[in-house]
Amino acid sequence: MRAAPIKGILCDIGGVLYVGDTPIDGALKAVASIKNRYPVRFVTNTTQMTGAEVVAKLRHMGFDIHPSEVITALDVTRLFLEREGSGACYLLTDNAAAYFQDLPKEPCRYVVVGDAQENFSYDHLNRAFRVLMQGGELLAAAKNRYFKDADGELSMDAGGFVAALEYACNTRARIVGKPSLDFYHLACASMGVKPEESLMIGDDIESDILGAQEAGLKAALVRTGKFTPDDLVRGIVPDAVMDSIADFSLLG
Amino acid sequence: MRAAPIKGILCDIGGVLYVGDTPIDGALKAVASIKNRYPVRFVTNTTQMTGAEVVAKLRHMGFDIHPSEVITALDVTRLFLEREGSGACYLLTDNAAAYFQDLPKEPCRYVVVGDAQENFSYDHLNRAFRVLMQGGELLAAAKNRYFKDADGELSMDAGGFVAALEYACNTRARIVGKPSLDFYHLACASMGVKPEESLMIGDDIESDILGAQEAGLKAALVRTGKFTPDDLVRGIVPDAVMDSIADFSLLG
Repeated sequence: MRAAPIKGILCDIGGVLYVGDTPIDGALKAVASIKNRYPVRFVTNTTQMTGAEVVAKLRHMGFDIHPSEVITALDVTRLFLEREGSGACYLLTDNAAAYFQDLPKEPCRYVVVGDAQENFSYDHLNRAFRVLMQGGELLAAAKNRYFKDADGELSMDAGGFVAALEYACNTRARIVGKPSLDFYHLACASMGVKPEESLMIGDDIESDILGAQEAGLKAALVRTGKFTPDDLVRGIVPDAVMDSIADFSLLG
Repeated sequence: MRAAPIKGILCDIGGVLYVGDTPIDGALKAVASIKNRYPVRFVTNTTQMTGAEVVAKLRHMGFDIHPSEVITALDVTRLFLEREGSGACYLLTDNAAAYFQDLPKEPCRYVVVGDAQENFSYDHLNRAFRVLMQGGELLAAAKNRYFKDADGELSMDAGGFVAALEYACNTRARIVGKPSLDFYHLACASMGVKPEESLMIGDDIESDILGAQEAGLKAALVRTGKFTPDDLVRGIVPDAVMDSIADFSLLG
């Protein structure tokens, strides 16, 4: 039995298309090449920017990206709360929290955790803890361990703070973004392509590579962003390993 | 075979002797009764106060407590670092961090986590994260999930923040205080009593009761402090359950 041919591409954003505010060398041309051949969705667990802000940032760098091609964990979280008709206690940056301000405040049945950065204070976390101890459910945009920060070093991502609340309340978060199966399947469906006909490109060995593979996709790891050589000796085998997104320019 | 008779008592402090700044009803008399019959060590995972401050607080409330009878997680952490001859990055209150200021700063091979409260900021946690990612070892005074706060509600304890760093760095903390076997055995040894001849009194079903039982002690749960009725349906069976420490007054 032959493997199904690739008919659609999912592509992570931070660490794959750019680091900090600088595009990866060759990424602009590679994105153009990919879009020439395949439908594509740019998928990100970032919750510091809305989808519209992600598009604006990418366009400012010169990427040719359409708003319908971007799916963020914040979008999927909002869809979830709208469907549930519920309010939430938000551990997010002020900017990201504003994205939810028109949703109903009550009943408050959820705690939403994203990249809150300086908003990860003891007081904010303890407020969320008390909502959970009253029966609230923990909703995590993502559970990434760390990210490549603007200073070039790795920094703590939201995953640790999700783990903090999980441990304190003896509960398990529902993950809304990558690597949840629902997220990958929703992204493939929005292209009209089956998971087994899709290729995920990412720099996170767990969330992008293992997560996509577990959802039935193929997965290519790039050696940029948060990639470190240790990622390749952890028992997770990407379907391809490339120096960077630029290698996709050979698609022509 | 008969169970060994009890020859020494370990007693938790916060939630058992007092809540906030108020002694539990009957606790003063009960402590006098216990001390009349047994050697005793008051053991606490608090890292907000040094042993000397714990003694001062208890004496101010009227408890007859000698400094040699108090063992805190901070004491045991300091012993550990002295033995290792190592510096550390401290996630503690300023007051508790000052307790370590005369130790060498370098080499910095450990991250010490205690009840840092407002010092659990994103910046402080990320600094600790980077020490761990460089090969440092995570040392936790304790991994308690929550405590009964001064406002009468449960609040997040340091355990969640230990879990945050464990998750972000994909590592496991070494627990220095309760419920580590070393802590319980050290406390029993300081009374000259075997673990199986010791009784631990506490309000934390995991750290005090399960922890002590796993170290070979008997354990009595009191229905004060952080106790909630749910504690009794989690599969952990205390050797005794008492309304409060006051019930030990019947020892005479």
